[in-house]
Amino acid sequence: MPFAALETPQLLLDVTKLDANTARMKAHVERLGSRLRPHLKTTKSVDLARHVLGDLSHPITVSTLKEADYFAGHGARDILYAVGIAENKMDHVVALRRKDVDLTIILDNLASAAMVVARAAAAETMVPVLIEIDSDGHRSGVEPQSGALVAIGRLLEDGAYTLLRGVMTHAGASYDCRTTACIEKLAAQERSLTLGSAEMLREAGMACPVVSIGSTPTALFSKNLDGVTEVRAGVFMSRDLVMAGLGVCAPEDIALSVLATVIGHQPAKGWVITDAGWMAMSRDRGTSGHGIDQGYGLVADEYGRLLGDVVVNGANQEHGILTAHEGKPLDISGFPIGMRLRILPNHACATAAQYGEYLVVDSGSEILTRWERINGW
Amino acid sequence: MPFAALETPQLLLDVTKLDANTARMKAHVERLGSRLRPHLKTTKSVDLARHVLGDLSHPITVSTLKEADYFAGHGARDILYAVGIAENKMDHVVALRRKDVDLTIILDNLASAAMVVARAAAAETMVPVLIEIDSDGHRSGVEPQSGALVAIGRLLEDGAYTLLRGVMTHAGASYDCRTTACIEKLAAQERSLTLGSAEMLREAGMACPVVSIGSTPTALFSKNLDGVTEVRAGVFMSRDLVMAGLGVCAPEDIALSVLATVIGHQPAKGWVITDAGWMAMSRDRGTSGHGIDQGYGLVADEYGRLLGDVVVNGANQEHGILTAHEGKPLDISGFPIGMRLRILPNHACATAAQYGEYLVVDSGSEILTRWERINGW
Repeated sequence: MPFAALETPQLLLDVTKLDANTARMKAHVERLGSRLRPHLKTTKSVDLARHVLGDLSHPITVSTLKEADYFAGHGARDILYAVGIAENKMDHVVALRRKDVDLTIILDNLASAAMVVARAAAAETMVPVLIEIDSDGHRSGVEPQSGALVAIGRLLEDGAYTLLRGVMTHAGASYDCRTTACIEKLAAQERSLTLGSAEMLREAGMACPVVSIGSTPTALFSKNLDGVTEVRAGVFMSRDLVMAGLGVCAPEDIALSVLATVIGHQPAKGWVITDAGWMAMSRDRGTSGHGIDQGYGLVADEYGRLLGDVVVNGANQEHGILTAHEGKPLDISGFPIGMRLRILPNHACATAAQYGEYLVVDSGSEILTRWERINGW
Repeated sequence: MPFAALETPQLLLDVTKLDANTARMKAHVERLGSRLRPHLKTTKSVDLARHVLGDLSHPITVSTLKEADYFAGHGARDILYAVGIAENKMDHVVALRRKDVDLTIILDNLASAAMVVARAAAAETMVPVLIEIDSDGHRSGVEPQSGALVAIGRLLEDGAYTLLRGVMTHAGASYDCRTTACIEKLAAQERSLTLGSAEMLREAGMACPVVSIGSTPTALFSKNLDGVTEVRAGVFMSRDLVMAGLGVCAPEDIALSVLATVIGHQPAKGWVITDAGWMAMSRDRGTSGHGIDQGYGLVADEYGRLLGDVVVNGANQEHGILTAHEGKPLDISGFPIGMRLRILPNHACATAAQYGEYLVVDSGSEILTRWERINGW
């Protein structure tokens, strides 16, 4: 189907770029002797997962139990739910475990560990757990190599129906880096603190077979993955302007974009109005603190060729306002009413979440196929 | 169903507050002699619309043709699609018109008017149009009382299958006000510039029966609606922290919230971690420029009682980080693991768009019923 037959906005996914991005990450992680457990929270699509992974027997990571249900329903059997567990989700966890899904959960505190021990025992269902380590201070996780870590491990080991599988961390602070040297340092720190935590549990007599780390920036800039049994990353498949701003990729590598149409102008101000507002792009302003603030997105032509100094400078619910960077006026004669544009997103996870499907494209202006995706909880 | 039986996050809607908010707006607009054409882009729910409007024969406003389809499928017949039309949506517009839906579209430029004249004639289907007026410089619209306005009107009048129905504007600049005096001034300006534009068209011999204005702030602070045939507003039903920051309502009036659960702590930093991150709240940071920056949301207990100085200071995809305002530490002993909280959103339109349903509640901790909602295009 040609773009001209589509109502806009639509979410496009360039399959050639997707394949190149995925191959690059896979080769890097495997060269360093580890393996990927891709985080499917960015893409949330069985069709896309099958394309990238071959089939869903591959280990995967999810951010919601709805994703776990969805991927398990299509064949996934080795799933890590990588958000600290709440008691209200334990019935759901048990139900998935009883369907022969090898679902692993995470937690970072004694109260949650005691809750899981009690709920797993009450359900007489074995529940494997990773302890979340705080490797960079950005969010969750127990202090690495701490007494609290060992106490949580001991509680899980002593539970009749809990299985301490190992440790995990997410180096989310890498998103705050402004240099690749900073990302490289965080990657080394992520590995060493998580490995040190696994060693501490092992020295205390616990097996701790899994050492799971990851974030797209640290995964791509890691130089050593010795002892790391798996690497989790998600946004690497599509990439986005935040990744480009961190030097992880070029804007030309971004596989995800929003197809929009010019619906108006403000000639006196040099503004071009489109039908892709913040509902189409998300409210994510992840590049606002970067060297180049890309507004709500960087603008390309309908074939995906970057137009240079053109961004979505402002956004209402269903309106985007295009200007040059920093709100400078555009020559609107280059943007006639009805012109189609592709807009690259700041944050792939947030933009994709506004849509129920991907229109799969390459460098042309035709739809090759549609891939469904899910949202919500 | 009690909250304790729910997996979190969930979207809650306090029906008592919804009813009070709606009654307040309706009474105000009717007292000034106009009528509401509520904008259903915030709530996107037939169940909610029926509750608030009685039935769907009431005039409504929508932000997407998907909303138009959805509400028309449940009985709506008088629908304004309030985003400048693109040619790729004209087949859809014609299809709705042919189903006896009185769908009105808008535009603000000669090229779009010529396109609509041609497409309506080719389809031999009458298409009613409002001309969008730029009453405050914030986004779209033709210059009020300008030659361009009259030229667009003439083109539509001359079209065999276009019906110039009138003029409309949206005073979105009211969201940038920091005082109620500013909102009052914008409300008066919104009315006078739109009314003046209607008069100009009438003086040029065009009927222009409709004068449509609106935004929740200007609608509530309007003092005179003489000559205004309809007022569009949407967020007034639920309200949100942006409206509270503008002085349009109190935080206690906000009907929409997200039910979340405490999943962890960072004791040394005074952080409380919940399972409601930016996916649950949206990335909207609409209060960031306000006198009180509410982060990603203001925190109440599970009954909706505000906890005071507690906000979602940081958010990852499925994690919220609670602190006091400005990131100051909390006494985490007040937030045990497993505690349920209600989090009030910055921007109701953006937060609700992350969910497929509302759980309808009042001041208790039970679900009264579920109301579906739609998303996407």
